[in-house]
Amino acid sequence: MNERDALRALAADLPHAGDDAAVLDETVITTDMLHERTDFPPGTTRYTAGWRAVGASLSDVAAMGAAARAAVAVYADAAFDPEDLDRFVAGAVDVCEAVDAEYVGGDLDEHVEFTTATTAVGRVTDAGPVTRDGARPGDALCVTGEWGRSAAALRLFERGDGESIERANELFRFTPRVADGLTLAGTATAMMDSSDGLARSCHQLAEASGVGIELEREAVPVHPAVDEVADGEDERFELAAHFGEDFELLCAVPEAEVSAVSEACPAGLTRVGTVREATDDEERPRVIADGDPLPDRGFTHGDG
Amino acid sequence: MNERDALRALAADLPHAGDDAAVLDETVITTDMLHERTDFPPGTTRYTAGWRAVGASLSDVAAMGAAARAAVAVYADAAFDPEDLDRFVAGAVDVCEAVDAEYVGGDLDEHVEFTTATTAVGRVTDAGPVTRDGARPGDALCVTGEWGRSAAALRLFERGDGESIERANELFRFTPRVADGLTLAGTATAMMDSSDGLARSCHQLAEASGVGIELEREAVPVHPAVDEVADGEDERFELAAHFGEDFELLCAVPEAEVSAVSEACPAGLTRVGTVREATDDEERPRVIADGDPLPDRGFTHGDG
Repeated sequence: MNERDALRALAADLPHAGDDAAVLDETVITTDMLHERTDFPPGTTRYTAGWRAVGASLSDVAAMGAAARAAVAVYADAAFDPEDLDRFVAGAVDVCEAVDAEYVGGDLDEHVEFTTATTAVGRVTDAGPVTRDGARPGDALCVTGEWGRSAAALRLFERGDGESIERANELFRFTPRVADGLTLAGTATAMMDSSDGLARSCHQLAEASGVGIELEREAVPVHPAVDEVADGEDERFELAAHFGEDFELLCAVPEAEVSAVSEACPAGLTRVGTVREATDDEERPRVIADGDPLPDRGFTHGDG
Repeated sequence: MNERDALRALAADLPHAGDDAAVLDETVITTDMLHERTDFPPGTTRYTAGWRAVGASLSDVAAMGAAARAAVAVYADAAFDPEDLDRFVAGAVDVCEAVDAEYVGGDLDEHVEFTTATTAVGRVTDAGPVTRDGARPGDALCVTGEWGRSAAALRLFERGDGESIERANELFRFTPRVADGLTLAGTATAMMDSSDGLARSCHQLAEASGVGIELEREAVPVHPAVDEVADGEDERFELAAHFGEDFELLCAVPEAEVSAVSEACPAGLTRVGTVREATDDEERPRVIADGDPLPDRGFTHGDG
């Protein structure tokens, strides 16, 4: 049983689970665990780790179209180095400040491996939470920001020289798209964050909404750092669409609203495709890119 | 640097941290991590683990005198056994139901060891949060429930036979004292939960409030299961007062209010001592039990 199947099993029993964050009245709440072996390549500073881990939870709040209020973190390691801990907290505090939330503390645990569990809470707007299941045929499919940032960072971490590692750390410290999520709340018909990658997220959104998606490869905004590390156009798309861990927003927006809402999104909003009617034809997959099926392939813990 | 020192360092930078839960406006939020090697002895079922882990966070909400609203959990293991996961979720759901909260979902992670990180959110009453720092000389020192329950469970787990293990699991599934905490809110001048044990909690409360404490050993309510496993009176007190992990409440209550509030606490409230003036005399320790210094010794991760 991989993580994706297990998450489905976990969500099936719970009325409030299954989206990017659970919703309870006006509150959204979401939690994540990251650890050294799978999530923080050698060279990742504790400052970056604190920023990124708390940022991952704040990104889930953003994906619900909610305002971020507060975050907490558990910091676990084999030993407590006070400087490491300070740096981690500084990263957590700074990413919260970047989205008008407050880092309010946490807990410590001794563990075999550096591990962090983060939780963020937010408050939905009067428009209510934006879930994954409301996309309608004819909507424009849009994304925030530029894609492939984490893939590029990983390649730079692998290079291992000081300058590459510094640049990789910067790329790893993404800004959670809370301001964009709030801009899109009330307009987007469906929204999610892209932690599993663009391709897999398209499949998830299409499945949750019971629709099909047509993606235009050329339209996907690729982060300039990808051009430094990718070898050719195919790899460029692979890193931008399949690698995952980018924490941008993917959403469906009524065609007539795209232009106005795009201008209002601080991170930029790009139209990358169109929501179509679903078919019951198994030969015709839910997600198509430039006429060809887009594989449901991306980042899933427990696959490897 | 052990966990306690590290937690002090972590709390020093953050305006909302340092008590059982962080407070942000009317919301309290708290997070904990537990893992197999240190927190779940062999024989602990996944149902018990889910109950206990989520219960530990709900206990922190209780300690603030707040109503429990919701909890989330990260479930991490080397592999995802669907039945294990179902049992864990069932335990999490049931402990939430026991305190009128909702378990709203979580996240999964692959890890070398079964590890869970839990977060609970609550809402303070009109009386505001009850912190650790308000105890006043003359207040009665009171505790909920009966003590030594987890110590007894650990001994029963060690016995290893089926009946002992079943009983140990039952003892591990404590009821978080949310109803008692709500009863005490507005009356207790200081409150905390006892995850580090009665002795250490007394020291923490005394230090936070700048007071001394006189404990009466005989008055401490000891769980009947302790009598099954303890060898003599000294070990009985050791298990009840120093072992920790009991998740009962320790609080200071104005003398005149003790009788009325005791009757209203569902878990029972027992007067175990008196809050005294602090002295600057290093020869006279902050916490005294029956005239002798009570060692600041209890359960701390990172000590061993």
